Amino acid sequence: MGVVVVVLGSTGSIGTNTLDICKKHEINIEALSCNSKVEILNRQIKEFNPKYVCINDEKQAKNVKHTNVFVGENGMMQMLSVCKSDTVVNALVGFAGLKPSLKTQELGKKLALANKESLVVGGKFIKKQNLDAIDSEHFGLKFLLQNKTKVKKLIITASGGAFYKTPIKALKNVTPNDALKHPNWNMGAKITIDSASMANKLFEIMEAYWLYGISDIDAIIEPTSVIHALVEFIDGSTTAHISRPDMRLAIAHAILKNVNNKITPHENLIGLKALKFHTISHKKYPIFTIKDMLLSNPDLGVVINAANEIAVYAFLEQKCKFLDIQKAVLKATKEHKNIKILTQDELFVIDNQIRKETKKFLGLI
Amino acid sequence: MGVVVVVLGSTGSIGTNTLDICKKHEINIEALSCNSKVEILNRQIKEFNPKYVCINDEKQAKNVKHTNVFVGENGMMQMLSVCKSDTVVNALVGFAGLKPSLKTQELGKKLALANKESLVVGGKFIKKQNLDAIDSEHFGLKFLLQNKTKVKKLIITASGGAFYKTPIKALKNVTPNDALKHPNWNMGAKITIDSASMANKLFEIMEAYWLYGISDIDAIIEPTSVIHALVEFIDGSTTAHISRPDMRLAIAHAILKNVNNKITPHENLIGLKALKFHTISHKKYPIFTIKDMLLSNPDLGVVINAANEIAVYAFLEQKCKFLDIQKAVLKATKEHKNIKILTQDELFVIDNQIRKETKKFLGLI
Repeated sequence: MGVVVVVLGSTGSIGTNTLDICKKHEINIEALSCNSKVEILNRQIKEFNPKYVCINDEKQAKNVKHTNVFVGENGMMQMLSVCKSDTVVNALVGFAGLKPSLKTQELGKKLALANKESLVVGGKFIKKQNLDAIDSEHFGLKFLLQNKTKVKKLIITASGGAFYKTPIKALKNVTPNDALKHPNWNMGAKITIDSASMANKLFEIMEAYWLYGISDIDAIIEPTSVIHALVEFIDGSTTAHISRPDMRLAIAHAILKNVNNKITPHENLIGLKALKFHTISHKKYPIFTIKDMLLSNPDLGVVINAANEIAVYAFLEQKCKFLDIQKAVLKATKEHKNIKILTQDELFVIDNQIRKETKKFLGLI
Repeated sequence: MGVVVVVLGSTGSIGTNTLDICKKHEINIEALSCNSKVEILNRQIKEFNPKYVCINDEKQAKNVKHTNVFVGENGMMQMLSVCKSDTVVNALVGFAGLKPSLKTQELGKKLALANKESLVVGGKFIKKQNLDAIDSEHFGLKFLLQNKTKVKKLIITASGGAFYKTPIKALKNVTPNDALKHPNWNMGAKITIDSASMANKLFEIMEAYWLYGISDIDAIIEPTSVIHALVEFIDGSTTAHISRPDMRLAIAHAILKNVNNKITPHENLIGLKALKFHTISHKKYPIFTIKDMLLSNPDLGVVINAANEIAVYAFLEQKCKFLDIQKAVLKATKEHKNIKILTQDELFVIDNQIRKETKKFLGLI
């Protein structure tokens, strides 16, 4: 026997959504109950063929097309007692839902609880184990606190860097000083330039690939740098990590055995600027066009890094233009796209080779 | 001996933040390294008294005020070999960080990794265990995937209900039909009215209290109903649960043994309206003024629910005004604020009593 459930309040919004889920997942319905919507109930009886049904409104009982009809509150209690299902979905409205919740737990059944009043009124007497709340907020909290759902995709955010608001055609003449003005993070010169070109985000995608063993990874722009990462789970849930842009948080977790105190104040959610997500424009950040190539051949890491390092330092010394950085990286990547690295030593050989090639390309040697 | 660490790249942004964390948590510094900023290094030597130091720039070596100075890349490798710390913070910039990362792992030490290039270039050869990435995005991902940090506060969101944009002075004349137009969720009449008055959010706060055993709970308005819940952790991290407003997600998790398929499509982050959080106005939603009273005496649940149920149905039958709902709830709460419930049976007695009192207050009997 597969999963079998009882649905109390089957004709309401939660009830009909529950039946929809049951249909898709081949869960059998042992019993249905409703207050008075007899026409909907009769349609559900036809579709789901429950063993028992219950209607609260006595006057409607004769119109229910079923041979096992219970009536009223006491009828519902009797029906619950004869049901064999191990799960009861309580989607009743109001105080009337409390008794069936208590009864469900008395009978040792799992309580799938959409009836808020059971907890608001009787929280003290409801066992929290073997209970799942059907409410988007409480599901959200549970997901954040105890989630075990399979990961589908990783998403990291980018601020957009120093040139997020600079028109594309102005990029060809930007200077190192322009590029070093990062809007949100106070960082070293190399990484600030890498933020402006989006190379930094490519690097972080590669890091995430190695760290978490997942190759479905993307980056999106969140200009305020308040949301740092998101995870999409298989069910349709997405979670986000929010904090002030303060590196001490990541450092503390990396060097302390346990983080059990405040490292940085929480972001004041009310005070935040509006949060908006944007795609990373391939026109503005051409380096980002190679993301999927990199994820399908991560051995390219040494190539993009060597070309990028040479070009960034050349740009900082005003020996090349800003857009040359991206050109140098794209050229090296394309020329070596099928590279395979087998040993650690090869990393140092290839790094050296790419550095020379990039210097030539930029006219530095 | 407490925790002892080596900090490579101590004079940069990550390095100085790391030393700040070490100072606050009484972590000893065994060794420091930097490229060439000898003045900052000398200040750090004075403050942290490391056993060893290393400087990359040979010309600056004579200016380091320390008796155990290693020089250059090879010097750094030698220094790592003699260090006893079990954690190395690698905050070096560029490809130059790869060798020290490999060496750190060879020596069996934990790698606290801010040097992106170690993974971008050498990810294949870096062990992912005994490694923490120092990067807000990867920390964010790890937090979302594997978080064990202590919870500080639960936050649930509210859409604001049907009257979120209605001026306060217009509320006294709103009709049941006005109140039943909920902006984001398609729900039953009772809960839609409860959303308009914010009683629903008070109920959900009480539910969260019973479900998760935490009494620091708040609600904020997020008008698009895309973020359903947030959790603040002790360290300063906040996480958020994002999904389409589709109840089947919570239902599936409540009735299926394992959710291992797509229940609803993910929210398309790029297409979202700007996300903004707002406080719940006590002027517009006076019922919310009793939130803390409820959390300090959760036995009041039966009182607010009974008064609210009577008043909401009276409003739906046009026997009282919208604002009378809140008045009835506030009156009942204040009159019974010290109530103590000891048995399940008392719930039913008190529920009955409050219903009668509320009917009298509203002139229904």
